Amino acid sequence: MRPAGADVPPRVGITVGDPAGIGPEIVLKSLEMPEVRRACQPVVIGDAKDLALQAESLGLAFPYKSFAQPETVKPNSTAPVIFDTRSIDGNIDRGRVSARAGQAALSAVEASVSLWKKGKIEAIATAPLNKEAIKQAGSQFPGHTEMLAALTGTSDFLMAFFAGQLRVVLLTIHVSLKDAIRAITRDRVLSALEATDRELRRFGIRAPRIAVAGLNPHAGEHGLFGSEEILEMNPAIADARKLGVDAHGPLPADTLFLRAARGEFDAVMACYHDQGLVAVKSMAFGDAAGVTLGLPVVRTSVDHGTAFDIAGRGVADPGSMTRAILLAAELAGKERQVKEHCTTGIEQEK
Amino acid sequence: MRPAGADVPPRVGITVGDPAGIGPEIVLKSLEMPEVRRACQPVVIGDAKDLALQAESLGLAFPYKSFAQPETVKPNSTAPVIFDTRSIDGNIDRGRVSARAGQAALSAVEASVSLWKKGKIEAIATAPLNKEAIKQAGSQFPGHTEMLAALTGTSDFLMAFFAGQLRVVLLTIHVSLKDAIRAITRDRVLSALEATDRELRRFGIRAPRIAVAGLNPHAGEHGLFGSEEILEMNPAIADARKLGVDAHGPLPADTLFLRAARGEFDAVMACYHDQGLVAVKSMAFGDAAGVTLGLPVVRTSVDHGTAFDIAGRGVADPGSMTRAILLAAELAGKERQVKEHCTTGIEQEK
Repeated sequence: MRPAGADVPPRVGITVGDPAGIGPEIVLKSLEMPEVRRACQPVVIGDAKDLALQAESLGLAFPYKSFAQPETVKPNSTAPVIFDTRSIDGNIDRGRVSARAGQAALSAVEASVSLWKKGKIEAIATAPLNKEAIKQAGSQFPGHTEMLAALTGTSDFLMAFFAGQLRVVLLTIHVSLKDAIRAITRDRVLSALEATDRELRRFGIRAPRIAVAGLNPHAGEHGLFGSEEILEMNPAIADARKLGVDAHGPLPADTLFLRAARGEFDAVMACYHDQGLVAVKSMAFGDAAGVTLGLPVVRTSVDHGTAFDIAGRGVADPGSMTRAILLAAELAGKERQVKEHCTTGIEQEK
Repeated sequence: MRPAGADVPPRVGITVGDPAGIGPEIVLKSLEMPEVRRACQPVVIGDAKDLALQAESLGLAFPYKSFAQPETVKPNSTAPVIFDTRSIDGNIDRGRVSARAGQAALSAVEASVSLWKKGKIEAIATAPLNKEAIKQAGSQFPGHTEMLAALTGTSDFLMAFFAGQLRVVLLTIHVSLKDAIRAITRDRVLSALEATDRELRRFGIRAPRIAVAGLNPHAGEHGLFGSEEILEMNPAIADARKLGVDAHGPLPADTLFLRAARGEFDAVMACYHDQGLVAVKSMAFGDAAGVTLGLPVVRTSVDHGTAFDIAGRGVADPGSMTRAILLAAELAGKERQVKEHCTTGIEQEK
C-alpha cells in the first residue's frame, strides 16, 4: 500500500458500538452524508451480516464491500467498506442489554486497533457502547477509552471535546465533585498542560495558547473563595511556562469558554466534568465531538449513549456520529501534514 | 399620586453605582435608548452635579429635571428624572478607588430604598459599585445585595440571572467550591425551591417548572459519582413536590441549561457559581441581567464591575445596564399585574 499523501483522504475506522443500540443506524446514516464521503475513506467495523439486516429493516442502502481479515482490507477513496468482525452468532434484541451485543461491541474496538496497527486506518471514530453489556460480556474495562488505552499501551490520556474553535480538555471526568477537587494538584495540572500542548501541536496548531479555568468562582478571587488556585494551579502554570507551554490562568471560568470560542485561546482546561461540559453543550448545540488526547491513534467519539429506547426505529439523529467521523478525518489529516513537514525537513512556520 | 395601573409604565429607580467607575456613563447612555423610555419611567439616583459633569465630559445630553427630597419626586412617563443624592463634596478621580466615591455609591443605594418605601419607585436597577471603596467609606456590607437586604429587613435572598427564557437561580455564590458542596443540604435546597416557586409566581409565571441541576457529573449516576444527590437533593425535591412545588431532578447539569433555554423548564437551580454562570455567560452573550429573589422590592443588576480601567473614556458598553433596567421594568410590570388580579378577585388561569 502506498504511503498516505495529502491527496488521499484519511482512512477512518468507525466502530458500530453496541448493535442493540442506535450505533449501527447512526453509522449507516452518516455514510450517506456527502461531506463524510468527501472527507475520508470510511472503514466501518462491525458484524457485516447484522449491519446488512439493520440497513434492510431501516430502509437504508447497503452497497458496501466487506473484508474479514485485517491484511486484506483495502480502504476505498470512492466508497465506504466494511471490516466484518463476524462477531454475532444468533439474533440481537434491539433495545436490550445483552452479553452478546456487548461482545460484538468489544470485538469492533479490538478490530479497530488491529486495523490501525496494520496501517489500514489512521483514526478511529466510535459509536456508543453500553457499559453494562460489556461488563456482562466479561470486559474488565469501564468503557471505550480505557480499553483503547490498554490495547495501544497508553497510560496517560485526557478526555476533550472539540467544537470548532472551542476545544475543552477535562482535568477530571467521571468522579464526584469532591474527588475532582482533590485531584486538582500541581503535578496533574502540569502534566495535563504538557500533554495538551503536545497534542495540539500534533494536530497542527503551531503555538497553542492554553487557558486554565479556575476551580473556584472568580478563579478564587485572590484566595478569598478557595486556595487551590494559589497552592496548586498557579505553580503548575508557572512550571508549564518555564517548559515552553503558552499556559494562561487560572482564569474565571464563567467568561473563559466564550473568550476561547471567540478565538482568544486554542484550548481551555476545565477542572471538572460540568465546568467543561456545561460550556460545550450550551455553546455547541450538538456540534461537538469527543476526542481522546494522548492515544497514539486519533480517536473521536459521539457525545451521547446507545439510546436503547429508540433503537431500531429509524429515528436516531446521526449528527454527533457524523461530527465525530468528520473530526477524526480532520485530525488525522492535520497529523499527516505535521508529520510530512517534519520528515521532509520543511521548517514549520512560526 | 394615583395608584399604579397597567397603562402607566413602571417606575424604575436606577442607582449610578461608584461615580469613579463606568456606572454613571452606562446609566446616562441607557437613558437615551428608546426601548428604555418606552418600558419605564426612569428615576436616576445619584449626585446630580456629578452626573451633569460626566454627561458634559462624555458629550451626552443632560436635559433631566432633578429632585432632592423623596417626597417631592414626580416620576415622569415621558422623560427620565434625577433624584439628587447631593452626596459628592469635591472632585471624584475617575478610575480610582476612594472613600468619597464609595460613600456616593452607598448614598444612592440608601436613597433607592427610601424612594421605594415612599412608593416613588417600584423597582431598583443597580449600576456597579466597588467593594473596596464602600469598605473605605465605612460600610459593613460586602456588596449591594446584603445592603438592600438589611435596608428592607430581608434575611433570605437568592441570586439569580435571567436571560429571556433561561432563568438560573444559584444555591451558593461567592464561596469556594469545597464550601459550596457542604452547603448543598436538604434544608437549603428545599427552602430555595419554595422561595423560587414563590418568586416566579410573583413575576407572573403561574405554574413554575423548576429543575435542579445535580451537584456531581451525570447528577451522580445513581451514586456512582457522589452521594449528595441521593442523601440531600432527592429528599429535598420530594419534600418540595409534597408542598406543591413543581420541582424536577436532580438532572445532569451539562444538558439541563440548554433544555431550559428551549422552554422545558421555567428555572434551573444551580448548585454553585460556575455551574450556573458558565451556562448563562455561554448562552446569553451579554443579554443576561442579575435578579435578587426574595427582596420585597424588585431588584436587578448589571453582570459586570466598575471597569475602572476604562472609566471616563466614553467607551463603556451600556448593554448589560440597559438589560437590567428593562428587566426591572418587566418584572415590576408583571408583579403589578399579578397583584391586580388578586386584589380585584379575578381568578388566575391554571
